[in-house]
Amino acid sequence: MKRSEVIYGIHPVRVMLERHPERVKSVRISERRDDPRVRAIEEIANRQGRPVQRIDAHALKSAVGEVAHQGVLAEIVPLEPWTEDTLFSALESCVSPLILALDGVQDPHNLGACLRTADACGALAVLVPKDRAAQLSPTVRKVAVGAAETTPFVAVTNLVRTLRLLKDAGLWIVGADADGSRLAEEVDLKGGIVLVLGAEGAGLRHLTQQTCDWIVRLPSRGAVESLNVSVAAGMLLYEAVRQRR
Amino acid sequence: MKRSEVIYGIHPVRVMLERHPERVKSVRISERRDDPRVRAIEEIANRQGRPVQRIDAHALKSAVGEVAHQGVLAEIVPLEPWTEDTLFSALESCVSPLILALDGVQDPHNLGACLRTADACGALAVLVPKDRAAQLSPTVRKVAVGAAETTPFVAVTNLVRTLRLLKDAGLWIVGADADGSRLAEEVDLKGGIVLVLGAEGAGLRHLTQQTCDWIVRLPSRGAVESLNVSVAAGMLLYEAVRQRR
Repeated sequence: MKRSEVIYGIHPVRVMLERHPERVKSVRISERRDDPRVRAIEEIANRQGRPVQRIDAHALKSAVGEVAHQGVLAEIVPLEPWTEDTLFSALESCVSPLILALDGVQDPHNLGACLRTADACGALAVLVPKDRAAQLSPTVRKVAVGAAETTPFVAVTNLVRTLRLLKDAGLWIVGADADGSRLAEEVDLKGGIVLVLGAEGAGLRHLTQQTCDWIVRLPSRGAVESLNVSVAAGMLLYEAVRQRR
Repeated sequence: MKRSEVIYGIHPVRVMLERHPERVKSVRISERRDDPRVRAIEEIANRQGRPVQRIDAHALKSAVGEVAHQGVLAEIVPLEPWTEDTLFSALESCVSPLILALDGVQDPHNLGACLRTADACGALAVLVPKDRAAQLSPTVRKVAVGAAETTPFVAVTNLVRTLRLLKDAGLWIVGADADGSRLAEEVDLKGGIVLVLGAEGAGLRHLTQQTCDWIVRLPSRGAVESLNVSVAAGMLLYEAVRQRR
């Protein structure tokens, strides 16, 4: 794993400075920008004692390429993947944790999109099995547009075993399947929950289904048998956020 | 446009035979399959007077390649793209139409994923501008896994003008934006509505925003500024389907 990652864009850099200043090594801002949003970033960085440097367009481009950087980037200490132990420690200080588990999602684009949505919905972590599933990679980080640096990623040896431990810790395990017996809105998603999505095409494995407290179904009125896994994750996370308001 | 398209998989072929038998030119089934789901397809095809042929594994593979065809495929008349006129004619026979409009989505994967979700959520059509936006292509059809053959696609010269005509026809125009003044659940999505999503990164154009009756916001608790457009479309369509039950 690289010892530093570069994130860019006003919102991601600001959130990182506010929530995890200790992970920000340096901030670089385009010498062309001098508006309130950029000045706010400069102020927060100064307050947190993080070095800020003004750079020219050429240096910006060579650091991140042709992306929507909005004239702001930060070099940060990457988020270390969590172990199962880190996850259980984090649970202790978390009221009503929301975890997204992916049961064998193989496509890095789907994993990246799921990380991005999990981040937007305030999930504690994204949980996957170590084998036969997409892991954190440069492609995943790119698709996640910064979410891989803020939403912890946990790869475990035996997903069903970890789900059972989470159940023992008091969380409800809620899987999504086209044949689910209930609608997502009929299940209480306000407490501590793990939302479990199956792999592209195959869906939830039998043993994973058996571990779930509830199996819910999502809209399926059409000719297409199932939803894209990252869209299905988005719908379930949306429903959880909606109920929690 | 090709004069025929091949769709595959038990569910898509069955739905096509049930809903649009006149568009099914022929059905081909693996000679290895003889289970109730496949026999049901044979029966419907016979009832509708559509030719059914048994073929071997080699012929199946050469027709569709290495995909999850489940031993069933159908050659169909492709769904013609709709004109604006077709859309307005269809509105007349539709109670509480649900339309998804994409304001300049450029990525064919996002467009394909949106078609797939629109299909699953029973949308009447997907509406896009003709210029500076992804159009139906082989990539889009592939990502939509059959939804492009059932959910009409409407490309119009001037999206804002069409939205205004839809408004005049009695539909509510509901846009999604990070700065939206209301939550999606606070707006009544049960009547005839157009859900409008902006382009990747740029969001809704100013003129499109002004055309909307409501601008709603989706979850954004994270470090990442916005959701992927196909995930955002999935959340909004989910909310509409939830309210309509």
